[in-house]
Amino acid sequence: MKRLLAALSLGAFVAMSAPVRADEGMWTFDAFPSAKVAKTYGFGPTKAWLDHVRESSVRIAGGCSASFVSPQGLVMTNHHCAVDCVGQLSTPEKNFVEAGFYAKAEADEIKCPGFELDRLDGIDDVTAAIRAATNGKSGRALIDALQAKQAALSSSCGASLAIRCDVVSLYQGGVYKLYHYKRYTDVRLAFAPEYAVAQFGGDPDNFNFPRFDFDISLLRAYEGDKPAATPEYLHWSKSGSTAGDLTFVSGNPGGTDRLFTVSQLEYMRDVEYPRQLPFISELRGLLEQYELEGPEQLRQTKQMLFGIENSYKALFGRSGSLLDPKFFAVKVAEERALRAAVAKRPDLQASVGGDWDKLAAVEQRKAQLAYRFQYEAQGPFSQLFRYARVLVRYQAEKAKPDAQRLPEFSDARLVTLPVQLFAPIPIYSGPEELLLNFYAKKMREDLGPDDPFVKSVLGTKSPAVWAHDLVAGTKLGDVATRKALFDGGQAAIDASQDPMIQFAATIDAAARQARKQYEDEVTAPEHQLTEAIARARFAILGTSVYPDATFTLRLSYGVVKGFVDGNGNNVTPYTTIGGLFNRASGSEPYALPQSWLDAKSSLDLGTPMNFTTTNDIIGGNSGSPVVNKNGEVIGLIFDGNIFSLGGEFGYLATTNRSVAVDSRALLAGLRNVYQADRLVQEIGGP
Amino acid sequence: MKRLLAALSLGAFVAMSAPVRADEGMWTFDAFPSAKVAKTYGFGPTKAWLDHVRESSVRIAGGCSASFVSPQGLVMTNHHCAVDCVGQLSTPEKNFVEAGFYAKAEADEIKCPGFELDRLDGIDDVTAAIRAATNGKSGRALIDALQAKQAALSSSCGASLAIRCDVVSLYQGGVYKLYHYKRYTDVRLAFAPEYAVAQFGGDPDNFNFPRFDFDISLLRAYEGDKPAATPEYLHWSKSGSTAGDLTFVSGNPGGTDRLFTVSQLEYMRDVEYPRQLPFISELRGLLEQYELEGPEQLRQTKQMLFGIENSYKALFGRSGSLLDPKFFAVKVAEERALRAAVAKRPDLQASVGGDWDKLAAVEQRKAQLAYRFQYEAQGPFSQLFRYARVLVRYQAEKAKPDAQRLPEFSDARLVTLPVQLFAPIPIYSGPEELLLNFYAKKMREDLGPDDPFVKSVLGTKSPAVWAHDLVAGTKLGDVATRKALFDGGQAAIDASQDPMIQFAATIDAAARQARKQYEDEVTAPEHQLTEAIARARFAILGTSVYPDATFTLRLSYGVVKGFVDGNGNNVTPYTTIGGLFNRASGSEPYALPQSWLDAKSSLDLGTPMNFTTTNDIIGGNSGSPVVNKNGEVIGLIFDGNIFSLGGEFGYLATTNRSVAVDSRALLAGLRNVYQADRLVQEIGGP
Repeated sequence: MKRLLAALSLGAFVAMSAPVRADEGMWTFDAFPSAKVAKTYGFGPTKAWLDHVRESSVRIAGGCSASFVSPQGLVMTNHHCAVDCVGQLSTPEKNFVEAGFYAKAEADEIKCPGFELDRLDGIDDVTAAIRAATNGKSGRALIDALQAKQAALSSSCGASLAIRCDVVSLYQGGVYKLYHYKRYTDVRLAFAPEYAVAQFGGDPDNFNFPRFDFDISLLRAYEGDKPAATPEYLHWSKSGSTAGDLTFVSGNPGGTDRLFTVSQLEYMRDVEYPRQLPFISELRGLLEQYELEGPEQLRQTKQMLFGIENSYKALFGRSGSLLDPKFFAVKVAEERALRAAVAKRPDLQASVGGDWDKLAAVEQRKAQLAYRFQYEAQGPFSQLFRYARVLVRYQAEKAKPDAQRLPEFSDARLVTLPVQLFAPIPIYSGPEELLLNFYAKKMREDLGPDDPFVKSVLGTKSPAVWAHDLVAGTKLGDVATRKALFDGGQAAIDASQDPMIQFAATIDAAARQARKQYEDEVTAPEHQLTEAIARARFAILGTSVYPDATFTLRLSYGVVKGFVDGNGNNVTPYTTIGGLFNRASGSEPYALPQSWLDAKSSLDLGTPMNFTTTNDIIGGNSGSPVVNKNGEVIGLIFDGNIFSLGGEFGYLATTNRSVAVDSRALLAGLRNVYQADRLVQEIGGP
Repeated sequence: MKRLLAALSLGAFVAMSAPVRADEGMWTFDAFPSAKVAKTYGFGPTKAWLDHVRESSVRIAGGCSASFVSPQGLVMTNHHCAVDCVGQLSTPEKNFVEAGFYAKAEADEIKCPGFELDRLDGIDDVTAAIRAATNGKSGRALIDALQAKQAALSSSCGASLAIRCDVVSLYQGGVYKLYHYKRYTDVRLAFAPEYAVAQFGGDPDNFNFPRFDFDISLLRAYEGDKPAATPEYLHWSKSGSTAGDLTFVSGNPGGTDRLFTVSQLEYMRDVEYPRQLPFISELRGLLEQYELEGPEQLRQTKQMLFGIENSYKALFGRSGSLLDPKFFAVKVAEERALRAAVAKRPDLQASVGGDWDKLAAVEQRKAQLAYRFQYEAQGPFSQLFRYARVLVRYQAEKAKPDAQRLPEFSDARLVTLPVQLFAPIPIYSGPEELLLNFYAKKMREDLGPDDPFVKSVLGTKSPAVWAHDLVAGTKLGDVATRKALFDGGQAAIDASQDPMIQFAATIDAAARQARKQYEDEVTAPEHQLTEAIARARFAILGTSVYPDATFTLRLSYGVVKGFVDGNGNNVTPYTTIGGLFNRASGSEPYALPQSWLDAKSSLDLGTPMNFTTTNDIIGGNSGSPVVNKNGEVIGLIFDGNIFSLGGEFGYLATTNRSVAVDSRALLAGLRNVYQADRLVQEIGGP
């Protein structure tokens, strides 16, 4: 598993599930089924327990989960959730990704550029306010009204660098909530192990189990240049866990599509995945070969490639679950049952009975517009291009009233724009050129060489030359250049000779138009139809279920448990540190760093290393703490098994497993391998 | 389009079509529907006409079509069909791919290493002999009996370097024929234009139209070190063609799956393509980035990459046609109708009624065994590995009686083994390492790092190190080394310290076992069941139809005609030389070579360049001549339009178009651009 890579789109789906199976569910903290859990497992979290765990949990805005593990703002998350920071702080001479990082003293902790942590402090129901603003509207008017109301609500709680408020649409638009966060933007790196042990087994072992990863890093939230006071934090378990123990996972699952209609799933299976998988595979090949060009190339793109490989495996697994006729038949049967129930109620049949077919027509339109949205509206993945687009649009958008802006430029969102824009992140021209060249080639392939937009981008240049000229000519890699364009107003943009700024400006009208068309013809009707279907589902199935994941804080419950693998073998839930040493062949990605080889004799090889539980999690949950019924840390989520990939569309209790680093291995490593005594003491482990 | 890339497997399907639509059909020369064509178009080929065109046609054993265009063995085919030879004759200093090649005198013509041309001289029906050998057998016994009989029949016509006999299974095993060929193994290059104009538009324009390619090369067949006498050859048309003209294409379509059952199509759609497309895309990315490393890297892999990109586009198009619900519904309806007809006839229902369900179960098993077959039985794509495998197996197989050998080592096939094995083809270590590394990585990904076969291959090495060690250590790139191992018998293999030989020897038992299992559990039952279904189809629909393509000589008919593109625009059937110059942006792949820029003023810009016809062709037809009713050359097939990709599964007369170079552009280019007067004179053009 990996942190959530894709940005969450405005129209991200949220759905209500059909009756829930054992251990299934990514529950909001304000609706956790404590009674049901108590009935099954003899323990149900109290309100105080829930408040404590919630206030000890943090979200990493980039797409991960984490938790406070000391009263001085110490934050535990995965290595793979902080590796971008570790890489950005590295140089060819001082490569912390390879060598690891440990701040012996507090003063040695280094700031992670552009990192943001959010702690959920409160939830308000704003459904009525949203309904009042959107009732009776459709199409563009609906989108505009919804965005305006969301912007107003987000700003209403006095957005500042320390406060963040988001409107969250749950149950596919059935409910709207305003989430209040305490925000930390001064986040520093305290500890990271070597990549080789953090991601031991690399891509081949990713999403697999048995597993042997030391996938942890420790960050610290600061306020006023001092460690933040975090009186609510998770204590370390003295005893760890054992098979069958009740486990809770508090984190931010990024997104699920469990209540997609059949036509939406068909779109994924027959259009989106068949296009995405080759796309991402070609990019993977480009990066793999680029890495072979030298150690510096490897350093520059190692994380990006692992992210791509992770996404590939996840998409391939999800695609496979939809291509499984038995799996798909369940979805078809569920929809048929719901439609039959709707048909029996004349009021529902009249209001929503035709909406499935309408939605199917929208999915057809989505297939037609998807390439144009991807290439024309979204543009290349290049970081330099993203800077250029933000700078160009910022000047245009800030001149408008809050309610009329693109949502990403609302007052509430503008608060952190400078933090992101001026973060001193190193930009490497090799990968940038690779990404831009790839964008241009695929665009020409998918839209055709004679497409007017393609011609407007490339002119008579080849993709490779076009990409090279942009990267060689732009100065947007310098923070000072970005700052000057940000502060210089529209005049600075208009006068800029920077080729990337000029490119972003040239395509801006077409890009906005492509986005608007997609929103008008896909996002808006899809939103309206799925909301209507969700309400009908509410009317028939009731509300004692959880909403689809939305990268907001959720609590899941389960037990420590193994599973039966694809070859019919029983897989036990725990691995050991001894197993790690046994698996270490000495060849990448199975080569242990010297620190572990040196420490072998001081380690108890029987110590549990990784373990599996039945908790229902998904991408975005990476870095989530696993806690026992006392709310103590017994593990650190970093992956799911191969069967968890189908969790995108449904939870299968028999095979779906989350994968965590055991708290005992974490402590043994910190203490015996890294002598990180300062942090061990702070964690207060046994 | 590109020449057929995949090797034809023993169990390649051949199928009988349902009632044939206008212009549909890849007809064998011994069953061409002349009367039907005459009725529609006022002209039907006579036996003499058919014999003349057949004897003027040649197959390039590597996967293309061609024709004799002079009585001195001059052969016309596509540039992309001969580009491997052009590349193999090139060096970094003398790059004929980039600069083109023209032999001013006959003595300047250079031998293409390992090239083979086959001219079809006769067809015998051997159905009865095959039936006698296989009747009542099933499973392994069936495979063994079939292979033994095929080997015996192939040898029976006195196989030698000059004679080739193949048993061809038509109509899904409904009919077996013995094809007699005159074989030419001394093939020399006479002319090739620059890659830039031969494949003008490169991958972006591939499978598209309007089109502007000069995709020709001229080879010559030699016998006894002299140009072969080929009294039967195609004359050049004096006038060329015009829209609506009747056209014939004589060539070797590689394979179609038009009569696959629904379960076989589902396997393609849901298993094979979703696996193949990402696989091939990743390889594409690796090669794209490798090419960027320098001009020599580009030279080494340019053809391979174009082949990969061509395959990708073809697979993506085929996958898309199966993912189109309307297209698939037609296939489902056809099968339902056939099964209903079978059900009405008690005899058929009893013998074959259950075979569709049995075949569906075989397809399930195929999905389970496919990875093992790919990685374990087939092994890496590396040329060095292929040499090693052939050398290792040759020694083992030649010790057995002909009938018991692997089919590729039958006496009939062994005749040309030395030609292939000792062809002085340059081997480049960079691409070899890339391919081996890719093989090992994907194998570990798809079979899992703990798979015993994976472990037996890699040991404790990483894929990159493993690949490097093999390529750096092997001497199989030298012809002399291969010859010594070939001549040295089993003892030489056993004593060899060559790491590639050792690798091939080490995995040989497992590889043979994986192949045998696949043949026993997939190939044999699939063969038996599809043959039974084909016979039932015969019984119901009759035999006035054509068999699925099998890379054997076929004749198709059609007319010069445009089409309506995906945006609803009318596309006229001809482009012009002027259009080529208009499209030339100066950037690769739209950069014309200097020769054409220099010759512009001497060319009539209104000359037809490329054109489209309704002929029913597919990959393998590349290089086929387009002839008029006088049997004269009016064009040279080199591609199909985007809609032709669905031709794998069915012919759609409204949109499916073949794409050819116009004979007038060919002559203008040879004469005015290349001053290839010797060859122009020989062709005897107007």
